[in-house]
Amino acid sequence: MQAKHTIDTAHQIATSTRIPEGAVALWWLGQASFALRSATSTILIDPFLTPMESRVVPPLFTAEECPPVDLILYTHEHIDHLDIPALKILAHHPSRPRFIAPSPIVDQVLAAGVEPEQLQGVQPEEDITIGGTRVIPLPALHGLSFPPVCYSFGQEISDGHYRYLGYVVELGGIRVYHPGDTLVFEGLTEKLQPLAVDLALLPINGRSYFREQQNLVGNMDEREAADLAAAAGIKAVIPTHYEMFAANVGRPGFFVDYIRATHPEVCCYLPSHGRRLIYMK
Amino acid sequence: MQAKHTIDTAHQIATSTRIPEGAVALWWLGQASFALRSATSTILIDPFLTPMESRVVPPLFTAEECPPVDLILYTHEHIDHLDIPALKILAHHPSRPRFIAPSPIVDQVLAAGVEPEQLQGVQPEEDITIGGTRVIPLPALHGLSFPPVCYSFGQEISDGHYRYLGYVVELGGIRVYHPGDTLVFEGLTEKLQPLAVDLALLPINGRSYFREQQNLVGNMDEREAADLAAAAGIKAVIPTHYEMFAANVGRPGFFVDYIRATHPEVCCYLPSHGRRLIYMK
Amino acid sequence: MQAKHTIDTAHQIATSTRIPEGAVALWWLGQASFALRSATSTILIDPFLTPMESRVVPPLFTAEECPPVDLILYTHEHIDHLDIPALKILAHHPSRPRFIAPSPIVDQVLAAGVEPEQLQGVQPEEDITIGGTRVIPLPALHGLSFPPVCYSFGQEISDGHYRYLGYVVELGGIRVYHPGDTLVFEGLTEKLQPLAVDLALLPINGRSYFREQQNLVGNMDEREAADLAAAAGIKAVIPTHYEMFAANVGRPGFFVDYIRATHPEVCCYLPSHGRRLIYMK
Repeated sequence: MQAKHTIDTAHQIATSTRIPEGAVALWWLGQASFALRSATSTILIDPFLTPMESRVVPPLFTAEECPPVDLILYTHEHIDHLDIPALKILAHHPSRPRFIAPSPIVDQVLAAGVEPEQLQGVQPEEDITIGGTRVIPLPALHGLSFPPVCYSFGQEISDGHYRYLGYVVELGGIRVYHPGDTLVFEGLTEKLQPLAVDLALLPINGRSYFREQQNLVGNMDEREAADLAAAAGIKAVIPTHYEMFAANVGRPGFFVDYIRATHPEVCCYLPSHGRRLIYMK
Repeated sequence: MQAKHTIDTAHQIATSTRIPEGAVALWWLGQASFALRSATSTILIDPFLTPMESRVVPPLFTAEECPPVDLILYTHEHIDHLDIPALKILAHHPSRPRFIAPSPIVDQVLAAGVEPEQLQGVQPEEDITIGGTRVIPLPALHGLSFPPVCYSFGQEISDGHYRYLGYVVELGGIRVYHPGDTLVFEGLTEKLQPLAVDLALLPINGRSYFREQQNLVGNMDEREAADLAAAAGIKAVIPTHYEMFAANVGRPGFFVDYIRATHPEVCCYLPSHGRRLIYMK
Repeated sequence: MQAKHTIDTAHQIATSTRIPEGAVALWWLGQASFALRSATSTILIDPFLTPMESRVVPPLFTAEECPPVDLILYTHEHIDHLDIPALKILAHHPSRPRFIAPSPIVDQVLAAGVEPEQLQGVQPEEDITIGGTRVIPLPALHGLSFPPVCYSFGQEISDGHYRYLGYVVELGGIRVYHPGDTLVFEGLTEKLQPLAVDLALLPINGRSYFREQQNLVGNMDEREAADLAAAAGIKAVIPTHYEMFAANVGRPGFFVDYIRATHPEVCCYLPSHGRRLIYMK
């Protein structure tokens, strides 16, 4: 459901110039789309800015209205994550952002008009620091929308490279985990534990036989997101990916109900779309 | 359910000395019990610190372990809000806190050993600033536990004075509304709107015929808390008062489910007991 | 949670002699364990009657207290479905029940003391009518508890036979689907549609990465159970398999919430453990 407030999110991102050290400001742009800003850097993850008939939540701002940004990360090529019409505009944004994407899809990012020197293709284990932001890529267990639905790291269609990624980004001294779209997979907890994630932006829409019959690739569900956060020692979670399309029927209330009953040591944040949330440890 | 983390909350409150301007650190101590700390002040609201058999959530720290505190506010005299055994110790705390309480119960606070010069009895409309904290008392519609349950401002047993209060406290530039125990009543929304509350700590345990038959006075419920926040233009809510005693059956998941569906412009925070949450606008 | 009523379920089953034509009486015995009685027949499905430390719901009655029964069906060999200590007693029950089990586990049933002439091993497509009860076996996609968890019909360890079954039973003119433990699988909806199921007893405990890491084989979850019922044209559902063990964290409230929002044409029944529910079309 669309929020009723009338915050000008693009303006707020642009003018949030006084974020303290040790803090990160965060705006949920709907689905898995986020803006983050520290004292020194502004980044976007999976900016989904193009108006579409099927969106339940309209864009908070369009690509043309995008505030200055230092770095844009893409996790994979699905339209709600890699929004090509928006990217075509962001590629020419006057702030000259840098771009990070999984190496198997750099061709798609370049084809949208990003200059090669703006773009860094990445793979897991290849940490990279751009401006004030450290980016630690992690695998994601997902799938493209070719029937039948199946889950992999995308290596079989990418010359052995990981095609679906998540990122732990560190800015302002805060570590934020954006998993992209992923199931929980063997080894993910172990990769996350030593990274000491402060805040995770976890999908809760789940997978099911009936979704998959409609060729909708799934994600972790409410219980798995909660259990993952607890197992990985993550301090706080924002549930995501449940409100943008009618087919995504994750329930934040069920997530909260389950996590309060099962892992009450994990904090939950449910920001309104487009409203600034500032996270400090 | 008790959180599994091993944070030393008292120590964390004592050592959180670098809260930025424009921010407030907050620790939920269970039920309606909170510690707040800004760059300049540390306050407690309704500190409920005494171990009791019937507590589902044990104290995060005892009165003896209480960190230095500038100001302690009490909303009313029920044991989970005015914890007299803890107060008897806090009255002699070496940090020499000031105390604020509804004027009809100052005798109870004095009887616990607080010195008259430490204590300020207050009534609605009597704003007071102590150290760095502005306190705006508001009425609360509640009742004492004399059968039959009935709701009032307590004036009928207090020489016309308001016996149950809530407070809007402003510290670090943030306005936090702690309603005490209250139903939503005529005029509350209108009182709150001009106060531009940033963060409200709202009970969700509700009232019901069956609670009242057990002589349990009620509170606003999940829906009323959400609707009040939206109506009063409150930006963020922490649901409270649902986990301490078996008879308090508020459901945070239902609160989230309802508010996301109905008032998605309101942010929700569900902090873990005893873990620091820093709020900035 | 255990029901607080004091119904003597065994006695109620034994004395429910006046079930009308076109009706079936049903008692939920916890987990996936049910007693059904029509005007002419009494059957048990997966009777789980042995007291165990780990049971959250104690047996409604023990095997020794079991009322007269015509037919006992087993879906697969997990202890909460094929309760061998109880079977050893039921095998000698004075009412001389008949038994039905998947053909790959007839040896286990015989070893418990059932006489060969009492027992019928079955496979999908092999409908059988015993007394007044028609039994239509269906495959179930499940797994034994050998790590790592994987899902199959059990053919790879059973000479090509189906090891995990569900049943549509017809008695008193009512068709009841008991799926055993199963995920939703390709073709299940299509098998169910022409069977015109009236009432389905569907597990909602789900599967997750973290369950499977503990070697706990999963089931359909709340959303899948609801979607299956709707897709198969089932008129009413009783959610099951969520309350017996701590590790089964299915939430009937979430099931109801989802199905009312998504498939309001499906009725939900949530019988109390051990209390008679009479279903008529």
